[in-house]
Amino acid sequence: MIVGTGPGKLEYLTLRAKEAIEEAEVIVGYQRYLELIKPLIEGKRIYPGRMKEEVQRARTAVGLALEGYKVALISGGDPGLYGMVAPVLEVLEAKGWRPGGPPELEIIPGVTAALAAAARFGAPLSTDAAFISLSDQLEPWEVIAKRLRAAAEADFVIALYNPRSRRRKKQFEKALAILKEVLPQDTPVGIAKGVFRENERLILTNLRELVDYLEEIDMATVILVGRRDTRILNAFLLTPRGYGQKYELD
Amino acid sequence: MIVGTGPGKLEYLTLRAKEAIEEAEVIVGYQRYLELIKPLIEGKRIYPGRMKEEVQRARTAVGLALEGYKVALISGGDPGLYGMVAPVLEVLEAKGWRPGGPPELEIIPGVTAALAAAARFGAPLSTDAAFISLSDQLEPWEVIAKRLRAAAEADFVIALYNPRSRRRKKQFEKALAILKEVLPQDTPVGIAKGVFRENERLILTNLRELVDYLEEIDMATVILVGRRDTRILNAFLLTPRGYGQKYELD
Repeated sequence: MIVGTGPGKLEYLTLRAKEAIEEAEVIVGYQRYLELIKPLIEGKRIYPGRMKEEVQRARTAVGLALEGYKVALISGGDPGLYGMVAPVLEVLEAKGWRPGGPPELEIIPGVTAALAAAARFGAPLSTDAAFISLSDQLEPWEVIAKRLRAAAEADFVIALYNPRSRRRKKQFEKALAILKEVLPQDTPVGIAKGVFRENERLILTNLRELVDYLEEIDMATVILVGRRDTRILNAFLLTPRGYGQKYELD
Repeated sequence: MIVGTGPGKLEYLTLRAKEAIEEAEVIVGYQRYLELIKPLIEGKRIYPGRMKEEVQRARTAVGLALEGYKVALISGGDPGLYGMVAPVLEVLEAKGWRPGGPPELEIIPGVTAALAAAARFGAPLSTDAAFISLSDQLEPWEVIAKRLRAAAEADFVIALYNPRSRRRKKQFEKALAILKEVLPQDTPVGIAKGVFRENERLILTNLRELVDYLEEIDMATVILVGRRDTRILNAFLLTPRGYGQKYELD
């Protein structure tokens, strides 16, 4: 079972995700995500993993499942988007696996970080959105840059995942330069850090002033970049869907 | 409370969404989504609404909340993406509302349809994705067409929402023509209908053959269009994240 655990607070797990973790005999996951679901996994056999060791975690989980254990492989947010499903399927493919198993596979979707962040800012996304990770660990920067430019030019709201880490800081500055080339400088931006967690921090700014908050931005941050028509509504962001042009609102 | 109820099976509600519905005195929502959560709302005061009447539902919910009722406004999938948050904020904005209230507002994110669909197909999304609605009810077709072309050219995996309704059929054919202009004809496509519901139907095809399934495609369908490197792995789709190039998989 590859289990999406959402933004990191137990309340935002799905009922099925909680049940799957409870059913599991063995838990495999990135150490930090395991801490967020600690009350659910106490007393179980646990294989914690470190960042960037996705393939190792996938192999561990597949190996244990093939031994006959009921395994929950924990993946923060949604496991299908920047999560553990792709490495598991790559590992299974190399083993000549077929759907149906062995091992049997269940993928349990979750609330992805951009949607959790959006919920804290009101309606920044509303409609067509592009989700882009700034990590060039597995994807060449040129491809990421092309997507950023295309998304900004075609008026998508943009959610940036993995914007900046202690070792990888330049990509964010390069991304910001691209966005500032294409979009108006006062395009609203929401910075959402540790959404729904104890240390949650939300910052509302715009492309021009985003540079002032660089030090706040880390791997637990999602950045929501508005469209040309996204507006700030007090502490909220609103990308209108155009109801006001068609209907009486009041 | 604007409550995202996910793909439509109770198991995929978040714990908080379930609790919020249980706490609510009054339930407002589109009739079809209310049917999917029937066991949770029995005995409550219910205001069902019809399709395309989002603004009316938003006004009803806001009005009842201002009268002092604890209201759950139900929104399928995630309420921030093609959901009820935008119309509610547009209505609140017209009333000069400020965050903090009245009324107090809580937005409860959910599992959006594309991620639920992705979970059924394995790892079609994996990484950068563009979410595009084909409904031109509120957005001009030219804007939608521009986004489609940009997303396909920049090698995003694409999730199409609201692809086709009984009255709106041409947009899907036009969208398909754009995708076929840009992408290889054998680009894998997943058609996911009624995901996680009793009548769930999953079809794996490609751009060339998608036309054979037109009659299957409706408003409860999400279509996942792969990238140039998305491959079919038996009944699954896999957009590789490139682990195989960096790590030993077996």
